[in-house]
Amino acid sequence: KKPYRIAVIPGDGIGKEVMPEGLRVIEAAAKKHGVAVQFDHFDFSSYDYYEKHGQMMPDDWKTQIGSHDAIYFGAVGWPAKIADHVSLWGSLIKFRREFDQYVNLRPVRLMPGVLSPLAGRKPGDIDFWVVRENTEGEYSSVGGRMFPDTDREFVTQQTVMTRTGVDRILKFAFELAQSRPKKHLTSATKSNGISITMPYWDERVEAMAKNYPGVKWDKYHIDILTANFVLHPDWFDVVVGSNLFGDILSDLGPACTGTIGIAPSGNINPERNFPSVFEPVHGSAPDIAGQGIANPIGMIWSGAMMLEHLGEKTAAQSIVGAIERTLGERTLRTRDLGGNADTEACGKAVADMV
Amino acid sequence: KKPYRIAVIPGDGIGKEVMPEGLRVIEAAAKKHGVAVQFDHFDFSSYDYYEKHGQMMPDDWKTQIGSHDAIYFGAVGWPAKIADHVSLWGSLIKFRREFDQYVNLRPVRLMPGVLSPLAGRKPGDIDFWVVRENTEGEYSSVGGRMFPDTDREFVTQQTVMTRTGVDRILKFAFELAQSRPKKHLTSATKSNGISITMPYWDERVEAMAKNYPGVKWDKYHIDILTANFVLHPDWFDVVVGSNLFGDILSDLGPACTGTIGIAPSGNINPERNFPSVFEPVHGSAPDIAGQGIANPIGMIWSGAMMLEHLGEKTAAQSIVGAIERTLGERTLRTRDLGGNADTEACGKAVADMV
Ligand SMILES: CC(C)[C@H](C(=O)O)[C@@H](O)C(=O)O
Ligand SMILES: CC(C)[C@H](C(=O)O)[C@@H](O)C(=O)O
Repeated sequence: KKPYRIAVIPGDGIGKEVMPEGLRVIEAAAKKHGVAVQFDHFDFSSYDYYEKHGQMMPDDWKTQIGSHDAIYFGAVGWPAKIADHVSLWGSLIKFRREFDQYVNLRPVRLMPGVLSPLAGRKPGDIDFWVVRENTEGEYSSVGGRMFPDTDREFVTQQTVMTRTGVDRILKFAFELAQSRPKKHLTSATKSNGISITMPYWDERVEAMAKNYPGVKWDKYHIDILTANFVLHPDWFDVVVGSNLFGDILSDLGPACTGTIGIAPSGNINPERNFPSVFEPVHGSAPDIAGQGIANPIGMIWSGAMMLEHLGEKTAAQSIVGAIERTLGERTLRTRDLGGNADTEACGKAVADMV
Repeated sequence: KKPYRIAVIPGDGIGKEVMPEGLRVIEAAAKKHGVAVQFDHFDFSSYDYYEKHGQMMPDDWKTQIGSHDAIYFGAVGWPAKIADHVSLWGSLIKFRREFDQYVNLRPVRLMPGVLSPLAGRKPGDIDFWVVRENTEGEYSSVGGRMFPDTDREFVTQQTVMTRTGVDRILKFAFELAQSRPKKHLTSATKSNGISITMPYWDERVEAMAKNYPGVKWDKYHIDILTANFVLHPDWFDVVVGSNLFGDILSDLGPACTGTIGIAPSGNINPERNFPSVFEPVHGSAPDIAGQGIANPIGMIWSGAMMLEHLGEKTAAQSIVGAIERTLGERTLRTRDLGGNADTEACGKAVADMV
């Protein structure tokens, strides 16, 4: 069997520090479970690259990484040095759009060793997935400004939802719900206030639900849904939302499980016409970069999601299990979780346990 | 001094049950503090009215209530009987737009006797205001559908932000921040993803901040801001957001303080060219209507906000104090808060203590 070809892009800040731990753990799991992987390293999609070349990525970036089986990504962005719309829209958002990664998938799971800010919630109580539409919706580029610098000035920006775009994300979410024991899907809407696009979203949910009679589904307006994440996180199994609503829920969800510092994510093209990107939810965190104290769990967990996406379930699950055992030991956790391990010690601990 | 003329609209469901308690408490506070109020009752903006007349409000509703000093509003909506876009857009949203109530104001305050879902948070720890733009932004009516019922189908809806609309809500928020001891304003944005309207919002915040050198301000993207509501609710003093972001934050905030069942709100026209609407955040709750168990605190607290808006600070503060003392006693709280009082007993308790 040919090895999986993984494009490795550490990016900026702590992205560079957590990446080696991610690779270490994938190598350990691959060895143990007889999976062959090949890592190809790229320095673009980083501030360093931008400084040298005046752009975030080379012109032929799609040729360089477009035929890989997956992209393993650290973190990008350095607000003090480079505007977000240059760094993020010049890399991350480009991947999502040009590789048609229309699913943004994130687990919301309360792990051992992590204290939830929600009173009395224990590992096992919170365990669901947020499925976010990742290519259209509120993140459109259609709009503009009129009457600039006058009292009549106004700006508009369109939310765009296509039949194709909405149906495929809903299909993914219903399939995921159907594969889980609870078979429960929750749709995020705001059709009582946003009166054109959101009723359309609701309409497509209703139509798609007909294909999945085994899935129980419900919907909540985004305002009360965020309230319910806090009040009743145990109500959820799979939650699907538009680009913006999914973005909000997939930060709020991890916050309810104690930290966004360990959450992983996948930017997925389910048809595998293009490589998918797997990256920790945390950013490049310039404030703690270079100290060796960054928590590598988000990076490592993203590696597990990548292996799962490649079809290597056993190796993926062995990593998630090793993460849980590592987090359960105070001496193996990093400081942000009240432990005393540094980045490398934590990564090695996970690698030892896969 | 002429009495304040208040238009009283109980609306649907538990709106009808909590309204008498709201009136009882306002009357008690008015009497005690020498404030003259006159209540005029209206039966429209309710499902009952709609059933009889085929519309939510009479054609001359603006004449009937447009010259009142304020509108005291229960709750509207009955999803099983009438679509939200008919009931809400036929009343509540009409008030906001036609009476130019461009500020939606809600306190986020952890009260005695209410258990926060956030571990270890005590009354006093969470105490801030959410200021929401209430007339434009994401709640626009501009957009439509193309290629219906084909694979090419798509819908669009514009977010619209005007200089007038953005500046006036920011001015209100900065003024409010300046009047508070901490003088701290937080702006909700998403300019890293929503690339036209949100950078404009940021730009206007920056411009407005120049007029308020005494106010410390910061901004967060809405995703991490919702996370920070859960992780660090003590960071906030005044939070300002667009129509949609304000909507989300003003449900999430009260959820972090234990219940949206007691939160009040004001839909305010600060210039007093039109009456403002004061209403509890909870809806009509058809599932518990008619049982006499609804919690009247949201209605009563909204009455305090109304008196404050009318300039009657002392009477307003006496109500808030009475609410705190009532909530502090288990026997005076309603069941949703672990007490055993019914709606009326709870309302009477507050009235006795103003
Ligand atoms: C009912 C709905 C249209 C409304 C809104 O979104 O504005 C409600 O959620 C609110 O916050 O008052
Ligand atoms: C950085 C930003 C553009 C991005 C988004 O909003 O999509 C981030 O918040 C995320 O969730 O990956």
